[in-house]
Amino acid sequence: MTLTALPLRLSTTQADFEQRFAERLHWSADQDAAIEQRVADILADVQQRGDAAVLDYTARFDGLQAQAMADLELTQADFKQAFDSLPVEQQRALQAAADRVRRYHEAQKKANGESWSYRDEDGTLLGQKVTPLDRVGIYVPGGKAAYPSSLIMNAVPAHVAGVAEIIMVVPTPAKGSVATGGSGETGSAAPQRGERNPLVLAAAHVAGVTRAFTIGGAQAVAALAYGTATIPKVDKITGPGNAYVASAKKRVFGQVGIDMIAGPSEILVLADGSTPPDWVAMDLFSQAEHDELAQSILLCPDAAYIDAVQREIDRLLPEMPRRDIIAKSLNGRGALILTRDMDEACAISNRIAPEHLEVSSRDPHRWEPLLRHAGAIFLGAYTSESLGDYCAGPNHVLPTSGTARFSSPLGVYDFQKRSSLIEVSEAGAQVLGQTAAVLAYGEGLQGHARAAEMRLKR
Amino acid sequence: MTLTALPLRLSTTQADFEQRFAERLHWSADQDAAIEQRVADILADVQQRGDAAVLDYTARFDGLQAQAMADLELTQADFKQAFDSLPVEQQRALQAAADRVRRYHEAQKKANGESWSYRDEDGTLLGQKVTPLDRVGIYVPGGKAAYPSSLIMNAVPAHVAGVAEIIMVVPTPAKGSVATGGSGETGSAAPQRGERNPLVLAAAHVAGVTRAFTIGGAQAVAALAYGTATIPKVDKITGPGNAYVASAKKRVFGQVGIDMIAGPSEILVLADGSTPPDWVAMDLFSQAEHDELAQSILLCPDAAYIDAVQREIDRLLPEMPRRDIIAKSLNGRGALILTRDMDEACAISNRIAPEHLEVSSRDPHRWEPLLRHAGAIFLGAYTSESLGDYCAGPNHVLPTSGTARFSSPLGVYDFQKRSSLIEVSEAGAQVLGQTAAVLAYGEGLQGHARAAEMRLKR
Repeated sequence: MTLTALPLRLSTTQADFEQRFAERLHWSADQDAAIEQRVADILADVQQRGDAAVLDYTARFDGLQAQAMADLELTQADFKQAFDSLPVEQQRALQAAADRVRRYHEAQKKANGESWSYRDEDGTLLGQKVTPLDRVGIYVPGGKAAYPSSLIMNAVPAHVAGVAEIIMVVPTPAKGSVATGGSGETGSAAPQRGERNPLVLAAAHVAGVTRAFTIGGAQAVAALAYGTATIPKVDKITGPGNAYVASAKKRVFGQVGIDMIAGPSEILVLADGSTPPDWVAMDLFSQAEHDELAQSILLCPDAAYIDAVQREIDRLLPEMPRRDIIAKSLNGRGALILTRDMDEACAISNRIAPEHLEVSSRDPHRWEPLLRHAGAIFLGAYTSESLGDYCAGPNHVLPTSGTARFSSPLGVYDFQKRSSLIEVSEAGAQVLGQTAAVLAYGEGLQGHARAAEMRLKR
Repeated sequence: MTLTALPLRLSTTQADFEQRFAERLHWSADQDAAIEQRVADILADVQQRGDAAVLDYTARFDGLQAQAMADLELTQADFKQAFDSLPVEQQRALQAAADRVRRYHEAQKKANGESWSYRDEDGTLLGQKVTPLDRVGIYVPGGKAAYPSSLIMNAVPAHVAGVAEIIMVVPTPAKGSVATGGSGETGSAAPQRGERNPLVLAAAHVAGVTRAFTIGGAQAVAALAYGTATIPKVDKITGPGNAYVASAKKRVFGQVGIDMIAGPSEILVLADGSTPPDWVAMDLFSQAEHDELAQSILLCPDAAYIDAVQREIDRLLPEMPRRDIIAKSLNGRGALILTRDMDEACAISNRIAPEHLEVSSRDPHRWEPLLRHAGAIFLGAYTSESLGDYCAGPNHVLPTSGTARFSSPLGVYDFQKRSSLIEVSEAGAQVLGQTAAVLAYGEGLQGHARAAEMRLKR
């Protein structure tokens, strides 16, 4: 049987558009009570037994029989060796990507991340001190689906923020073992050393990781959140992971900071028909190839162009090594939507609040001001989303599932925190003290009022 | 029996200091499974039945028998009337507080919250667009413990960010009914109109609230998160509430944004002995009076000064209307800690990462650079924490329970989100495309690689 990829065709003028559009967009995170309970148990155990529990779970879930945590620590020499072992082309690409990402995040820090203050007319100082977190943990998924680019995107902003210690955890499951996270026991013949991804270790070299451990799953999140004798307690945990990791991060939130819990990846292409249709087809593929739940949507006012994109999908699909995933994603969640015009396409895009938004138009700056909600906006035909994923500079960790309505790309600001600064002058205290006292008495908080009044001249 | 307030006396030189210090600091949020289940049920019901469910719960928990949601809506005229009914002194205080808070947050937006971009040497545009959320919900606790200052601190930054619609919910339980949130049934003789706090309504007038409903508890959070026929769905919910509200906010997180879940309030005073000891005693009271779990700690290298503060505590306590709460808080959670010197006091402060940190020193700028983790830093003897609570300008919604290690005061940035902007030039695509393709092939994502390669000149 021939493999086909037929994204849903819709038109905004059809009577049932709203309903079918809503159905196609619908996605909700599974809340698996069994996973949640298992994760709660693992967290409690690691909190109680520390390293011993981490060793047990690593043996059980990753098939790694280590005697001591030291056996699970990676060194700077490991990183360097991995980097040196790569072809020069990959070394250069990793370095180039890290450099561009660093430069962008330095600009971000300069623009939005510096301390500031002013003095008012009474000489009262007001401002905010912006400081880096002391120590962060970065979770990097292990095995074959490990993404070195993800490590760069997490570690570099932390570095630029000034975080002193960056602790990486990356599971290295033994060959033949199940993925980490709690899905079962493995055989006793497991080897001492799991599968290490050289690109990930090389990225750790380039991005600057302080320490690293080959552990994963809920046990790794617990170790970072609570600390163990070996693994230092961190202030925040970032980075993607499976359902166990996501559940563990949610559960330790408050104890430590966490980044967003990501849903499936999404791309929305707004096209006016000026971009070669094979470019757009490949951009839709580049999202769909992530996994079956990934969502690729084209919005375009030109029906003939949509037909052309579909033809390119048909032509290009057989060439793609990941064609099965691409086809499942496009058939199950993809959509090619005919709009009345580009203005309507922009309005629909705002309703979706996509993670990745390509404005594939000859005049992208005409439409950009209309686009209010998106993780990242890729302007013009040359800006393929994949350039942003790896090396343009901006972060590829972006809000998914419509959360771009209220959240932002990962950035330097995620590795900084702010402290308000207030120094009230004696003159200022006379004015502010009266206002504060009136309001405090109004709220029935006499201690607050008296504290303000004591600073008034008698 | 005479009421006494004896905070725990500790010295950093005593052998069991670490243990006793840790015991005193210990606090952990209750996770009440019964509350969580009840909240989950309420959320599901409101999501399903909308307004009808909200009306039911409001009748049941707040004793308000409304026939339609319209009966539970407050109008701008209600706000205005409440404001006009206040004594001039309170009107002026509310207005002055809102003006100062607005001015501070405008400075914050200008310093850290504007869009930015640059072009690299290839003409590629990189930057971030900063935009306001469309619509936010602010939860204001009801009844007698309602705090108008809290409404100002939540609504003003949203306004300054540019949020178009600010929806307030504030329960107005009928007299004699239980507090909202799900603790039981109320009698059928409940009045149609609950207790409205005129200061809160007046604050809504001053701070600029778009619409408001007299609902509360988990049902109000659900209505804001999912939307009902009457209540618009918001993008983010901020503001404090009881255990039901906190649980509901956690549960809807992801669907909408939320602010931090606050623990008990805390103050840490670093004193070098130069501030009148009664000022410091009253500052400790002003935190302790919030509730029994609030924590007030003094760190000081001068034993005689600590004695003087304790004498002022003894002298002032009987005068305080909230002396019972103050005594319970200081006896149960307060501490007066003798340190070797101010440097050690600063180091201990960093371990605590307090919500409010007073540097009650004649030379506060000597110590401020050493203080890395705190929600707000109050410099010098005139800067009582209560001035910051009401009107100095900075936000009084601050990270508690040590979360200042990784989080920040509520601010304009909480009502904004960022979208990365990328416009790769044709020349830029030639360079970036090669880097991206190498990395994408390395990760096994051929669609990404091909999308980048298609932009290369052939």
